[in-house]
Amino acid sequence: MKEEKVFKDPVHKYIYVQDAVIWELINTREFQRLRRIRQLGTSFFTFHGAEHSRFSHSLGVYEITRKIISQFERNHYPDWPKEERLLALCAALLHDVGHGPFSHSVEEVFGTSHEIWTCAIILGDTEVGEVLRRLSPDFPEKVAQVIEKKYSPQIVVSLVSSQLDADRMDYLLRDAYFTGVNYGTFDLERILRVTRPHQGHIVIKESGMHAVEDYLMSRYQMYWQVYFHPVTRSSEIILRKILLRAKRLYEQEYKFQFLIHPLARLFVNDLTVEDYVQLDESFMQLVFTQWSMEEDVILSDLCRRFLNRKLFKYVTLEQIDEERIEQLRCEMRAAGADPDYYLELDFASDLPYDVYRPGDADEKKLPILLLNEKDELVEISLRSEIVRSISGIHLGRHHLYYPGDVMGELKL
Amino acid sequence: MKEEKVFKDPVHKYIYVQDAVIWELINTREFQRLRRIRQLGTSFFTFHGAEHSRFSHSLGVYEITRKIISQFERNHYPDWPKEERLLALCAALLHDVGHGPFSHSVEEVFGTSHEIWTCAIILGDTEVGEVLRRLSPDFPEKVAQVIEKKYSPQIVVSLVSSQLDADRMDYLLRDAYFTGVNYGTFDLERILRVTRPHQGHIVIKESGMHAVEDYLMSRYQMYWQVYFHPVTRSSEIILRKILLRAKRLYEQEYKFQFLIHPLARLFVNDLTVEDYVQLDESFMQLVFTQWSMEEDVILSDLCRRFLNRKLFKYVTLEQIDEERIEQLRCEMRAAGADPDYYLELDFASDLPYDVYRPGDADEKKLPILLLNEKDELVEISLRSEIVRSISGIHLGRHHLYYPGDVMGELKL
Amino acid sequence: MKEEKVFKDPVHKYIYVQDAVIWELINTREFQRLRRIRQLGTSFFTFHGAEHSRFSHSLGVYEITRKIISQFERNHYPDWPKEERLLALCAALLHDVGHGPFSHSVEEVFGTSHEIWTCAIILGDTEVGEVLRRLSPDFPEKVAQVIEKKYSPQIVVSLVSSQLDADRMDYLLRDAYFTGVNYGTFDLERILRVTRPHQGHIVIKESGMHAVEDYLMSRYQMYWQVYFHPVTRSSEIILRKILLRAKRLYEQEYKFQFLIHPLARLFVNDLTVEDYVQLDESFMQLVFTQWSMEEDVILSDLCRRFLNRKLFKYVTLEQIDEERIEQLRCEMRAAGADPDYYLELDFASDLPYDVYRPGDADEKKLPILLLNEKDELVEISLRSEIVRSISGIHLGRHHLYYPGDVMGELKL
Amino acid sequence: MKEEKVFKDPVHKYIYVQDAVIWELINTREFQRLRRIRQLGTSFFTFHGAEHSRFSHSLGVYEITRKIISQFERNHYPDWPKEERLLALCAALLHDVGHGPFSHSVEEVFGTSHEIWTCAIILGDTEVGEVLRRLSPDFPEKVAQVIEKKYSPQIVVSLVSSQLDADRMDYLLRDAYFTGVNYGTFDLERILRVTRPHQGHIVIKESGMHAVEDYLMSRYQMYWQVYFHPVTRSSEIILRKILLRAKRLYEQEYKFQFLIHPLARLFVNDLTVEDYVQLDESFMQLVFTQWSMEEDVILSDLCRRFLNRKLFKYVTLEQIDEERIEQLRCEMRAAGADPDYYLELDFASDLPYDVYRPGDADEKKLPILLLNEKDELVEISLRSEIVRSISGIHLGRHHLYYPGDVMGELKL
Repeated sequence: MKEEKVFKDPVHKYIYVQDAVIWELINTREFQRLRRIRQLGTSFFTFHGAEHSRFSHSLGVYEITRKIISQFERNHYPDWPKEERLLALCAALLHDVGHGPFSHSVEEVFGTSHEIWTCAIILGDTEVGEVLRRLSPDFPEKVAQVIEKKYSPQIVVSLVSSQLDADRMDYLLRDAYFTGVNYGTFDLERILRVTRPHQGHIVIKESGMHAVEDYLMSRYQMYWQVYFHPVTRSSEIILRKILLRAKRLYEQEYKFQFLIHPLARLFVNDLTVEDYVQLDESFMQLVFTQWSMEEDVILSDLCRRFLNRKLFKYVTLEQIDEERIEQLRCEMRAAGADPDYYLELDFASDLPYDVYRPGDADEKKLPILLLNEKDELVEISLRSEIVRSISGIHLGRHHLYYPGDVMGELKL
Repeated sequence: MKEEKVFKDPVHKYIYVQDAVIWELINTREFQRLRRIRQLGTSFFTFHGAEHSRFSHSLGVYEITRKIISQFERNHYPDWPKEERLLALCAALLHDVGHGPFSHSVEEVFGTSHEIWTCAIILGDTEVGEVLRRLSPDFPEKVAQVIEKKYSPQIVVSLVSSQLDADRMDYLLRDAYFTGVNYGTFDLERILRVTRPHQGHIVIKESGMHAVEDYLMSRYQMYWQVYFHPVTRSSEIILRKILLRAKRLYEQEYKFQFLIHPLARLFVNDLTVEDYVQLDESFMQLVFTQWSMEEDVILSDLCRRFLNRKLFKYVTLEQIDEERIEQLRCEMRAAGADPDYYLELDFASDLPYDVYRPGDADEKKLPILLLNEKDELVEISLRSEIVRSISGIHLGRHHLYYPGDVMGELKL
Repeated sequence: MKEEKVFKDPVHKYIYVQDAVIWELINTREFQRLRRIRQLGTSFFTFHGAEHSRFSHSLGVYEITRKIISQFERNHYPDWPKEERLLALCAALLHDVGHGPFSHSVEEVFGTSHEIWTCAIILGDTEVGEVLRRLSPDFPEKVAQVIEKKYSPQIVVSLVSSQLDADRMDYLLRDAYFTGVNYGTFDLERILRVTRPHQGHIVIKESGMHAVEDYLMSRYQMYWQVYFHPVTRSSEIILRKILLRAKRLYEQEYKFQFLIHPLARLFVNDLTVEDYVQLDESFMQLVFTQWSMEEDVILSDLCRRFLNRKLFKYVTLEQIDEERIEQLRCEMRAAGADPDYYLELDFASDLPYDVYRPGDADEKKLPILLLNEKDELVEISLRSEIVRSISGIHLGRHHLYYPGDVMGELKL
Repeated sequence: MKEEKVFKDPVHKYIYVQDAVIWELINTREFQRLRRIRQLGTSFFTFHGAEHSRFSHSLGVYEITRKIISQFERNHYPDWPKEERLLALCAALLHDVGHGPFSHSVEEVFGTSHEIWTCAIILGDTEVGEVLRRLSPDFPEKVAQVIEKKYSPQIVVSLVSSQLDADRMDYLLRDAYFTGVNYGTFDLERILRVTRPHQGHIVIKESGMHAVEDYLMSRYQMYWQVYFHPVTRSSEIILRKILLRAKRLYEQEYKFQFLIHPLARLFVNDLTVEDYVQLDESFMQLVFTQWSMEEDVILSDLCRRFLNRKLFKYVTLEQIDEERIEQLRCEMRAAGADPDYYLELDFASDLPYDVYRPGDADEKKLPILLLNEKDELVEISLRSEIVRSISGIHLGRHHLYYPGDVMGELKL
């Protein structure tokens, strides 16, 4: 590019675009579509500021990756393979391009997977694919491999996906900024400064350990304060129930007054890439608006609850009393509501929960390694009492969700 | 309320709800609908952080008003009519409830008016109306009068709408926060502290003059840096052209493949309140997605431009050369594009432009009055050289917008 | 006061003075003297921004206390004894008035105690004492009792000194602000909002637990990142060695070229209040400047090191090898330096270390109590895994300090 | 240097030292001495946070200069003479090294000049001089020339001293941060990004004009809100009166009880460099403490006022009535006070006032030039209405200062 381009960003101040391919990727319709998908799904019901999109998050992940690589290059670290720069940047930018509207709920009900769609968009007959292929015919394949964590050299993967990657660093800062909570702030500049490429890994100089502790604490707090907030969970439950009801109605050949393409394909999980990129949150919102006028009482009621934020109440359970729950289901049926749609036992750590746990079987979760002054690597929880403490914590909370207008105030 | 409710807000930290009626108004479907309408319309195309909604702004206006009144009450200022507290709070909260999706463009093309819709929602058979009527049968009417600036005592009006009102103070801070620009920040706490009720006006202690100067400078900068940004204008022009094209096609009895209720009613500006509240930005976005597959080439092309951010380029005109523009229209036609839809001369100060000008005929623009130590009122530009300077400035910029892919790079 | 007074403060934005007695206390010479005593002693050698004084911290403690009490009054909590308001505010403002220059080091070498001096100033023939006596003859005694933690009702004491008191909350935020580190920030507004008076204690609503967790983590990080920073420790060691050398020289009847009043009295710990308030950091700095020209080589060398920041180096010891240290002392003597003044083994947790530990014998450390929805009190570490983890941590670090110019780079 | 060094800084987050010579300069005794000289003199009496030193400001000026040059190098701008990098950095770091305690007042009374002392320290037999000479024998001379604005190429001078230089940018941001006022913030990152070397000048890309407007407004506001604050002026007046009284007493051969070296030399403006660097604010503070016990009533009274913040009151004069002032002097004498020391007519714009005025004869004040897209230079006030407005403003305020305890409340 003859001159760098700049985006104003509230989290990083500015986002710098220095390569034509990055600029072109941002301008594809598949990437622009991320503007219509919120980063935090239904969290805006709890934190009204959380209306930011995956578009801004994706730019942020790109920017952090750019800064790390630029530091590597400025210091001429021999363990950083310079020729991988553009690949790493593209993968960072595109890692979420396959997200759909309210991904977690849609995936749970219809069995889609945003990782698969990300690769499909990168490899497919799309504007993104076309831009990448112009670099070289096998470039899309390489980007997909990085995102699928299969690429070698491995260091490119660990830049984009690890316990301390650009993705997590951006979303913690960004979600903290837009929700307005303080918990998610940590010293990004310091972490970037102590990050080093080392024998195929991204590691942290030991002198930066406390900044990493602070980052991990932010992560812990954000999970429990924001991501698992019971009001957000309540709205997600209603969302899932809507999708479930619609799917069942479709299976029962119910006559929808409103059934726009590609809904039917979504119900049977048989979408083309072209279908998929038509899905976004405005699509889903409008569908819910229309369904709030459907004849099916359950579907229309659930949609109205979602649109007008008439969420389910919840009660925290210290332990699960199956009998009592069964009894509640009966009471609910007696009150005229179907407990399959109106009663839900939710356990927060059911979610893809990534508070740092070393030794975790999950290969995605590469441990955070410290590089000490003698050039040895040590896993962080061996050095930090704080990290050791957090790593052991496996809290979970059971909540029972139900409509207060139907059931009154439950005591369990 | 037995206990105050709290919203986490990134701009004011917390928003405090202490009255049941406020809580109930927030939970109406008409107010919740504001979550689906962005505060800054199409500005997110320029500043990707600007995805915040009128919902959060409305809460912010309420909160500033609450803080001002609470200060008045704490200090027992005799010129504040205490009994008007709840009325002022309701008016502050609801002043934007009639906004629709992309209001400015929609209003320009179809002749609607969000002020009229605000009153219609407040007075009508709506959840908002019902909550207000519960306070007293004439309460909706009073709220509407405040919003229409007809209420007496006048001081309630000037709290909600003036040159230095809660509305402007919130949006400058909020838009600055979400876009990430620095220009819009000023010392809100100081301004609130020097605000006084005085003989039917809201005035400022003279010792706070510099804080007001700073606020007016922020306002000036935000207009030119954010609100009038040429990229935002470009997206608004495309939006207007889409609406215009659709309206003309409808008038020509074109057969839309997609024409969902209440679009047809909107085209002829004949909406009921119930119709109107169905309109939101997800509705419009989906309509544009569908229309991007319409047969009409102009409509589908414009929609694709809007969705995928293929905006018009612009060139700044020092002066307007009618002949040259006419010639360009010919060239454009020759290139196969209709200049009615693809060429637009735009003048920034055409917009409702409110940089402070004392003596302005517009009754809305009550001047900012300073209260000096001798209890005399002085209009601020008589005391402040800076304000005097800004007041005289009436800049305007002419831009010519056109599709770069059709016309190349224009030089004028 | 006819009108409230305001101080601009970078941490709390504004500090509000609403009572004449507070205003008069601030204007006493003893309180103004706190401007000449830095809040963080020698930390400015490590963090150059840490040049803020105990004056600004004392105002901050007052302001937080004022905000808490104002919240109690606004909500009419019955467990708050309203008549104690002014006493609590005075105690908050004055709790550090007895601090001298570089208190910790001076106290260690000469056996003074800032708590005792605080009471002496409050009770004595001072401007502070005079202002307080004007309220009532026994008012100084009451303020002293609060500061000595002997006052009843106990709730006043726990507002001013506890594990979560106004003192700690202000210094964490303030020290974080002026050093520029991120670690010390937490959500003060939220903590204030969930603070309750309850049966003689200051407690926290359980819903605010996570904000307290965040506060305790900040505290932990600030201790290890700022307060125990090895460079700061190094400068404190040199300071102590200077004082120690001067004291011994005085005992040996060395003829000082510069020995200004009341230094001699300080050496024998026999100061009057009038003497004591003459001591401040400019006094000490000038003494060191003058002593840097003394004939005694050790004294003048140490003073030059302090003034020109030629600090001792340090090496971290995993374990203490007495024999090796003895050997180093011999080597140092051989190199012409006296190890009593140039070699120091330092253990960080020797300091008054207050990371929260429930069950600690120290009566000062009242545990943090949570008030749950059933109005029961629970000690926080029983509810929070994070707090439980931190409470158990009793880290300490041994460092050996030495002059690098004399000994080269030590390896142990 | 084998590895870059880092300082934590609250304004710039981090300050990066990459050259051994910079590190060594910072560690000289002359530079460390700047820790004992406050950046804002007596402003801490008005804004208690303003206790920051010239040490931190000097690091900040260095850091901004480093960032600008680093941007020039990264973009390989041909108009930047790369070989001048280290010279520019040294000049930026050292430009204030000759400041003494309360420079403006001391200079006014004794006729010293910090610019001359800066050069004397750079060129003299000092640690700073020694470090510079190690680079090359004529290096100190070059640094001095840059600071004296005589160096060629001129672009180095304009980086360090101009209307938009690193010095001003740092102090506006820093003073705003430490006082806590909002006025001084502007978008530094954006200004740095649009700064260009161009034909011997430092210029600004026209697209960055609004950021410069914002910077100039900050400057205007900081002058009137902070630097010219009447309470600060009051403390400066007392300070000057102390110095004046002491000087006259010395001339009259008064026997000072306390007259430490090099005070006598200061009184006759005959200091060596070695004498001069012994002067700092702790020196002056201690002298004032001692003088507060002198027999001379005027000297001791003024010193107590300064130490205990018993400042003079002031009254604003719309116009100057010489007769009335003469009458006041008589009244004051009758009340037993000497008007030469207790009455002062002060005019704010007497100070070195640098609100931007193009066309100003003062050669220091190089105009701010914009570089437009056609590579032409335009002076900013020709493009910006805002700048044009500010440039014309030449406000001044007359205040009359007097002791309220002697004269009561004056009305004029």
